Amino acid sequence: MNLKRIGNQTVTFENPPVILSSYSVAGPKEGQGPLGKTFSKVWPDTINGNKSWEVAESKMLEEALQGALKQSNLQQSEIDFMLAGDLLNQIISSNFAARTMGFPFIGIFGACSTMALSMAIGSMLIDGQFARNVLVGVSSHHDTAERQFRLPTEHGSQRPMSAQWTVTGAGSVVLAQSGKGPRITAATIGRVLDYGEKDVNNMGAAMAPAVSDTILNHLQDFNRKPADYDLIVTGDLGNVGLQLSKEILKRSGIEMANQFNDCGVLIFDPASQDVHSGGSGCACSSIVFAGDIMQKLISGQYQRVLLVGSGSLHSPTSALQGESIPCIGHAVVIEA
Amino acid sequence: MNLKRIGNQTVTFENPPVILSSYSVAGPKEGQGPLGKTFSKVWPDTINGNKSWEVAESKMLEEALQGALKQSNLQQSEIDFMLAGDLLNQIISSNFAARTMGFPFIGIFGACSTMALSMAIGSMLIDGQFARNVLVGVSSHHDTAERQFRLPTEHGSQRPMSAQWTVTGAGSVVLAQSGKGPRITAATIGRVLDYGEKDVNNMGAAMAPAVSDTILNHLQDFNRKPADYDLIVTGDLGNVGLQLSKEILKRSGIEMANQFNDCGVLIFDPASQDVHSGGSGCACSSIVFAGDIMQKLISGQYQRVLLVGSGSLHSPTSALQGESIPCIGHAVVIEA
Repeated sequence: MNLKRIGNQTVTFENPPVILSSYSVAGPKEGQGPLGKTFSKVWPDTINGNKSWEVAESKMLEEALQGALKQSNLQQSEIDFMLAGDLLNQIISSNFAARTMGFPFIGIFGACSTMALSMAIGSMLIDGQFARNVLVGVSSHHDTAERQFRLPTEHGSQRPMSAQWTVTGAGSVVLAQSGKGPRITAATIGRVLDYGEKDVNNMGAAMAPAVSDTILNHLQDFNRKPADYDLIVTGDLGNVGLQLSKEILKRSGIEMANQFNDCGVLIFDPASQDVHSGGSGCACSSIVFAGDIMQKLISGQYQRVLLVGSGSLHSPTSALQGESIPCIGHAVVIEA
Repeated sequence: MNLKRIGNQTVTFENPPVILSSYSVAGPKEGQGPLGKTFSKVWPDTINGNKSWEVAESKMLEEALQGALKQSNLQQSEIDFMLAGDLLNQIISSNFAARTMGFPFIGIFGACSTMALSMAIGSMLIDGQFARNVLVGVSSHHDTAERQFRLPTEHGSQRPMSAQWTVTGAGSVVLAQSGKGPRITAATIGRVLDYGEKDVNNMGAAMAPAVSDTILNHLQDFNRKPADYDLIVTGDLGNVGLQLSKEILKRSGIEMANQFNDCGVLIFDPASQDVHSGGSGCACSSIVFAGDIMQKLISGQYQRVLLVGSGSLHSPTSALQGESIPCIGHAVVIEA
């Protein structure tokens, strides 16, 4: 049997799945940022009338899923799988959204890499002929993440400059066997790397090696160079991690130019929005992708984009037990 | 393009993936149970010299993964993906095991349905021609789950009779494009159902509707009856859930006979082991499958088995916020 693989870690598609539609819901802070106008919808506050932030996050994900589904013009019965994940314990935002949506559901955990990972798996399920259409969605929420991963939100403790700000939002795409839209042409599934970083307020430094490893393997597998992409965008290393990743890749002989950027860097304005190293959370790369990047792929400004989801795979328990942070990067190639 | 689907929710395989090998590691209580002799390895205690139960769980998973890999006679370089998941927040047992194993890693969350779900996805990745071989593994640990989901382990609080006992263990299989062994011929991916059960000490009742829905859809998709299987085994409804599921299926016109059982019921001896409604946890169905069921498939005692993983998709946070328990069932067909 022929394998749809190239090099060591990359899969390619015989009939590259189409991104039929995308939808992004953002929190108010994200709406005020430089990409504010690219989001499908901006919530006025982070709870939006729900009884808890956790319920709000799940509802936000539902809105994104419903939005992408509606824009795809597909019927409910045409969606064969829904793939979703988030940062909350037992991915409850996704589970509760899946309950409402009613589709056969596959729960994914890849921390902040979940959007790229789910798009990769969804594409394999479609090109493998197991689905006509797959609905993908991920979410994160500043207030749910803050109290789960860090400190009580009322605490108001000072964050170090290397810390990132969890994005409140939800992004969704509909992947399809056929139709009109940008196509996912390949994916590189990452390995877990851990260089011993233990500071959960410096996840950019923790994630940089794994993300750089995936980028390096991806380029080697295809024998491509960074200039073969209009944009190589990580999601989300933040300022600290992006600089480190550039440095790591440079030492491996890969010179990243201006087309190398990070969703966590792009989503907030460093001058007016106090987020230190940038944005993070599953929603960060998903709403930057579902909004700005999709729009530029459709307009033709981008011909080929490499979206590299980055995941920090620790838990508060593992951190308290003194473990370092295992990390991963998953990449998908999207072509106009 | 031809679709490898039948009915509404079931996928079938053109070249059904082979289960090349399986390996199960069990805790001491599980080792003393009726299936004790079927496990590849039994730990003398639940910590086995590790510094915490969480580290022990991850090491147990590593042992299972290494065991299955060794028995498959494959080289490290022949494994294209590792799929794993567990019950802990941010699936840390799997993430840390993936760090050691070094394979391209896909993290799955399906609560106690994770083994069946991972086997389904792994089979799709292989039959879709994206992988030659896939390593699948899941774990759970009584002591890590107890303190995360319920009460401090030192507390010694009384458990209601409907409660299940989280199995300490880890199960792993190697799925392959070709080779000798039982084959995965189909999979039915479940939908999230929630009939309003809020009692986290009665997960069998919460899960029964979703599991019954998947069994019903599976049988309808294939136009099969229960007698077409030597074993239809859920993992893990426990005694309460199994009875409820029989009742639900009966009302839907499906009479389940003696071949309908549950991994949580099979793994402990109700007379001598005080577990109330039975076992639970990702490990429960995975070590019953990797041990007893695989052995009976290889010996020819079973020709066709339906393994129905059942997942209770709540979190302690959602339960404390008064939400009911969303549940799911995923089924895989294994044939000798």
